Amino acid sequence: MSNLKNDRFIKALLRQPVDRTPVWIMRQAGRYLPEYREVRAQAGDFMTLCSTPELACEVTLQPLRRFQLDAAILFSDILTIPDAMGLGLYFSEGEGPKFKTTINNANDIEQLIIPDPADKLSYVTDAVSLIRKELNGDVPLIGFAGSPWTLATYMVEGGSSKTFSKIKAMLFEDPASAHTLMAKLADSVALYLNAQIEAGAQAVMVFDSWGGALTTPHYKEFSLAYMQRIVDQLIREKDGQQIPVILFTKGGGMWLQDIANTGCNAVGLDWSVDINLARQQIGDNVALQGNMDPAIMATNADVIKQEVARILAEFGAGNGHVFNLGHGITPNITPENVKTLVDAVHDISAQYHT
Amino acid sequence: MSNLKNDRFIKALLRQPVDRTPVWIMRQAGRYLPEYREVRAQAGDFMTLCSTPELACEVTLQPLRRFQLDAAILFSDILTIPDAMGLGLYFSEGEGPKFKTTINNANDIEQLIIPDPADKLSYVTDAVSLIRKELNGDVPLIGFAGSPWTLATYMVEGGSSKTFSKIKAMLFEDPASAHTLMAKLADSVALYLNAQIEAGAQAVMVFDSWGGALTTPHYKEFSLAYMQRIVDQLIREKDGQQIPVILFTKGGGMWLQDIANTGCNAVGLDWSVDINLARQQIGDNVALQGNMDPAIMATNADVIKQEVARILAEFGAGNGHVFNLGHGITPNITPENVKTLVDAVHDISAQYHT
Repeated sequence: MSNLKNDRFIKALLRQPVDRTPVWIMRQAGRYLPEYREVRAQAGDFMTLCSTPELACEVTLQPLRRFQLDAAILFSDILTIPDAMGLGLYFSEGEGPKFKTTINNANDIEQLIIPDPADKLSYVTDAVSLIRKELNGDVPLIGFAGSPWTLATYMVEGGSSKTFSKIKAMLFEDPASAHTLMAKLADSVALYLNAQIEAGAQAVMVFDSWGGALTTPHYKEFSLAYMQRIVDQLIREKDGQQIPVILFTKGGGMWLQDIANTGCNAVGLDWSVDINLARQQIGDNVALQGNMDPAIMATNADVIKQEVARILAEFGAGNGHVFNLGHGITPNITPENVKTLVDAVHDISAQYHT
Repeated sequence: MSNLKNDRFIKALLRQPVDRTPVWIMRQAGRYLPEYREVRAQAGDFMTLCSTPELACEVTLQPLRRFQLDAAILFSDILTIPDAMGLGLYFSEGEGPKFKTTINNANDIEQLIIPDPADKLSYVTDAVSLIRKELNGDVPLIGFAGSPWTLATYMVEGGSSKTFSKIKAMLFEDPASAHTLMAKLADSVALYLNAQIEAGAQAVMVFDSWGGALTTPHYKEFSLAYMQRIVDQLIREKDGQQIPVILFTKGGGMWLQDIANTGCNAVGLDWSVDINLARQQIGDNVALQGNMDPAIMATNADVIKQEVARILAEFGAGNGHVFNLGHGITPNITPENVKTLVDAVHDISAQYHT
């Protein structure tokens, strides 16, 4: 780890000893920061921000200038892959992501081409290279992608959904086509994450934001199996350094054992999961990342410190914990409360690493 | 059970032998039925429909005229209690339920008065009596209420919420007031459900629609503890008949053991839960109700039958299963698909009850 000035995050993912529990925050480069909102306004639209390496680099680094975070995460969107497949991603104000073209049937799926990251997604790998250079070894850089199931929900529904009725109808009525879609997405994600690793990402995370909407058998068949297919294809070591993989299914608390069995290095936990129980279940095989309720960030310093202390105590002494929220930070949070969180994790966790 | 022509539902809740697995459907009296939409239009607004016993009775009975359902459920809304507390419930088109007055602080909570069901909620007990009379013993009638935590989310947020930031801030910043609120709501719900039982409800169900949004310790402290307080106060036997209690926390799959330990008769399962695993965990103590994904109702007869067969097989032979969806039926479903579901449960389940 000699190339990193702060390697707590990588070491914790590999369940090696650290001096403090490392912490980063999902969506740490985001709207709660005034300097982010400034660059976002300057960029005009969200996709310009994502696809301009200098701007993506700038907003990636912003939270690290304010807080003692133990990792940076590439600023991007999970939907870059379907966009590179030609579906035409756009963001309509107040409605979230949308696609100009949606996937409706077997024929649409047949037509989908696995994007070559060097061609359609070079803006992402360029951003990764630039961020790595600018980070100058201060902290590791996390690359990421959406899970095949989560990407498929947007591609078939055409945007966000509450009931997932179209994609679920496909799983039930035409499972063969759904499997073809998930396989193409898994192979696209694997290529994409490997390209991020080649460009300098030192750990990667797969976000399965909507896995929790599935039945247990469908979760295993259509979401987890394709995260497994990704894990199996990833570069796991580069230049003598291990590249840890984190899998995160929001609402996946009942399936932690299955997720851990994929061979990933760490499992993300949303806030509904009891981290003590999770450690008992899977802590001998994987690291755990999480799991504070993002709603706590809207309270005050005392409550934040108390909740940090509770979660650290629930995990207990020993290796293999990366502190994080259980979901992305929301725009209404003050930067002061984020500083309180990050400092509290480092201060309070010292006692668990002696 | 001599007063019921069909007592499968009650027997299954008490884990007694039945000839077929009983089935009813959450929100079975609802917008997917053209005859419901007609009465709803006639009533003008939703609250008029709820608060006019003749109309509530009519829509309660509609699905029973079409399908061989094994239970009727009172047509009402979970928010009748906060409305009876004076918060002014109304329904704005496309936005769901709203309150004119919201609960913001300790003083607001202090002012709240536990409603006497005989006074402010007699329209509900009148509906129960009328429905019981009209049912004429064909099938049992289920009474229901929202859980204290779920009711509190609407009262503090002023309506539906995605993040529950106000009520969660209260749990963290002023837990004493939150406990006072939950205790008042629990006692109100207990009185209300007992009044429904006195009026003729033959089983009762508590809907904890938003329990899954909590951390594990907060779920136990602010939601489950107050469902326990309700269970402890309920009338459990009337006229020599047991009155079973069903508790349902959507997103509560990690807490089934705790829910079963309240002393309820049955636990509702959303569709993410593996019903086979749930039976192994708690099936010796309680009956299970659920757990088909409502999205399946939008597919076709073959898929519906196949999924009914899968869930019945997962539960397996023996007593203690009430078939249901894992959440309410949606308005886009055809009545034909509902008939397919109900008949499939009865046809396929015969083999498990010999």
